[in-house]
Amino acid sequence: METPWEYRYAHRMQKMGSSVIRELLKLTEQPDIISFGGGLPAPEVFPLDEFKAACNYVLEHDGAQALQYGTTEGYRPLREMIARHTMRYSVDVKPENILITSGSQQALDFIGRLFLNRGDYIVVESPTYLGALQAWNAYGAQYISVPMDDEGMIVDELEKALRIGPKFIYVLPNFQNPSGKTLSLERRKQLVELADRYGVPIVEDDPYGQLRFEGDHIPSVVSLDCKFRGDVDCYTGNVIYLSTFSKILAPGIRLAWVIAAEQVIRKLVQTKQAADLNTAAFNQMTAYEVGKDGFLDEHVKLIRSVYKERRDVMLEMMDEMFPSEVRWTRPQGGMFLWGILPEDMDAAEVLKIAIERKVAFVPGESFHPNGGGKNTMRLNFSYSNPETIRAGITRMGTVLKELVAKDK
Amino acid sequence: METPWEYRYAHRMQKMGSSVIRELLKLTEQPDIISFGGGLPAPEVFPLDEFKAACNYVLEHDGAQALQYGTTEGYRPLREMIARHTMRYSVDVKPENILITSGSQQALDFIGRLFLNRGDYIVVESPTYLGALQAWNAYGAQYISVPMDDEGMIVDELEKALRIGPKFIYVLPNFQNPSGKTLSLERRKQLVELADRYGVPIVEDDPYGQLRFEGDHIPSVVSLDCKFRGDVDCYTGNVIYLSTFSKILAPGIRLAWVIAAEQVIRKLVQTKQAADLNTAAFNQMTAYEVGKDGFLDEHVKLIRSVYKERRDVMLEMMDEMFPSEVRWTRPQGGMFLWGILPEDMDAAEVLKIAIERKVAFVPGESFHPNGGGKNTMRLNFSYSNPETIRAGITRMGTVLKELVAKDK
Repeated sequence: METPWEYRYAHRMQKMGSSVIRELLKLTEQPDIISFGGGLPAPEVFPLDEFKAACNYVLEHDGAQALQYGTTEGYRPLREMIARHTMRYSVDVKPENILITSGSQQALDFIGRLFLNRGDYIVVESPTYLGALQAWNAYGAQYISVPMDDEGMIVDELEKALRIGPKFIYVLPNFQNPSGKTLSLERRKQLVELADRYGVPIVEDDPYGQLRFEGDHIPSVVSLDCKFRGDVDCYTGNVIYLSTFSKILAPGIRLAWVIAAEQVIRKLVQTKQAADLNTAAFNQMTAYEVGKDGFLDEHVKLIRSVYKERRDVMLEMMDEMFPSEVRWTRPQGGMFLWGILPEDMDAAEVLKIAIERKVAFVPGESFHPNGGGKNTMRLNFSYSNPETIRAGITRMGTVLKELVAKDK
Repeated sequence: METPWEYRYAHRMQKMGSSVIRELLKLTEQPDIISFGGGLPAPEVFPLDEFKAACNYVLEHDGAQALQYGTTEGYRPLREMIARHTMRYSVDVKPENILITSGSQQALDFIGRLFLNRGDYIVVESPTYLGALQAWNAYGAQYISVPMDDEGMIVDELEKALRIGPKFIYVLPNFQNPSGKTLSLERRKQLVELADRYGVPIVEDDPYGQLRFEGDHIPSVVSLDCKFRGDVDCYTGNVIYLSTFSKILAPGIRLAWVIAAEQVIRKLVQTKQAADLNTAAFNQMTAYEVGKDGFLDEHVKLIRSVYKERRDVMLEMMDEMFPSEVRWTRPQGGMFLWGILPEDMDAAEVLKIAIERKVAFVPGESFHPNGGGKNTMRLNFSYSNPETIRAGITRMGTVLKELVAKDK
């Protein structure tokens, strides 16, 4: 009865890669380390009182429904609320265009399950969101990386990619995770037209769209697609749009939504039925109670002001403390910025030293599915308070100055 | 821009079967229909007050943690609580043997994802749980059905099945959904030994084990496996055990758990990371607060007494109203019983007429992955109150008597 794992299970299971980043980031859970590595919202802005009132209301008025199995599509009043919110941004949707998921990660997983056969190609921005790569690696996806400039994906490169025959295009147009970059209006229009011309659907992942601190709102890709095809009443278009309550309410309730053509939603509902039956009714009803009278519109203003301050502090400190050889993005919203070290420096090596000095970030290589980006890094500015950001960037600045000096 | 669905999406997506049962059961949502078709717990036994108190406590004391992202494994105090509970039933587990999932359906899905390649075989009881078939059909599973008698799976048939080389054996030992049958102690021991001899893992799905109204508790398959191999401290064995809070607390919070060897749990954690990051921290912390002082032990006594009354009423009414040509099981617990019509009757045809008479059930055919069971049906006794059960069984009795008379 020795090594039961090996003889009983190991050869029966799928092979899986392990996440180097995850292992490294485990080190950063030590309490004396200042970590810009995670992707957490500021807990200070969780609306605890409103959430508590909503829980109590739901349990008093609708407890039997809230604690029972729900429909796979999601709680209808919540889907109606999301539809109203979406229509304000010029996307003509009905509740039938909407599916509630357990976080956007689940939507990414379902999209993979629905579209991908082993070896299929997906067009992604380079760098792109790691969670999406993890979701789709499980289905054997391959990636065509389209390089970005300050306006996002470069369109000539995108067209070349589309001619390879990908299953879909994945894009994070607003304050992208990890780069903090935003796709310009002109580029969004070109994306919609190119995708239509080649008959390739777009997956638009938009967790941060509402967290804009400055500059003008840019219409979502789904709204431009809606306009492009003149859809009225019910969206039938080419974009599968994802957003979430994780960044505007709280991630700990695991609520996100998908907007797509009704037939796509129906397929996703079948997928969800087999995957986990339904998203917690209690959580959906509570989120609806919190959001139904426009509270979230007010609440995102608070989140924006808190995150803007933190971004400003981080940028100021970087200007002051980082060596001039390091460059970085200045995002107009969201939760992340992106650092670029001198070409020959390895961010993973920098991280090892940074952890010794009690500060951490995520090296950028793993956001590049086809390699590259060894000299890049992602910094989160939403989670730490301004004082912590000052201390952490000071520590990082010291490390970077030493390494850049050594590098010369 | 016509038929955008067909030209844009349909050929890019996986093919999926549709559920006939689901379509039929949609008809039963009309309020004047008495449905024994669903699988819902009685809402009358949801512990609303305890749940409300727990929500308030969690938000007041730990709101920032409850509304934040959590670990993929699950909330550690909840896993410790489950470990203590499990050890009372002679399974030596640590929290490292436990993963929290969003309902048991998610665990079934993850097991499929981890073990199955297209065309792989799974040994199942015949009939077996429809949700498991739906989860595994998505991975292209094939099934080897093992017939059951009153003691559960017939062992000689099981051994024949194991020689085909299945990936695992799936068994619901207590008050099986759909049949209401229980696997005897002797058969459980034989199952453990046979599975070990052929090196095939067992998936033990046990949502109803605590809902025994009468008769003696029978040790779980995982505990017999633990004993069989003399595991101490940390379970390393051959069984992946699933259970859930859906039947002892509430399904609307979507909380279940998996117990398995630590290496299996680690693989499942990686799967969950890609699939939905983590299960809602708020729900886990609330369930822990509800359960931590032994409340659930008391609460299941209430559930048992309510369900026992409902089962008794259903059986009494069936004895009185059903024609003698129809037979049925008399389960000692759980939520379902199983009816067997005369050989040449088709339960799906009976359902059509029953729906006209405003009563519904689930035809048994879809619980048989390799066909058969056309003359069987599943009846749920947990959801409807005794008065409704009396009215519904009276209606069914009338329909069945007419059809049996016509059949002669």
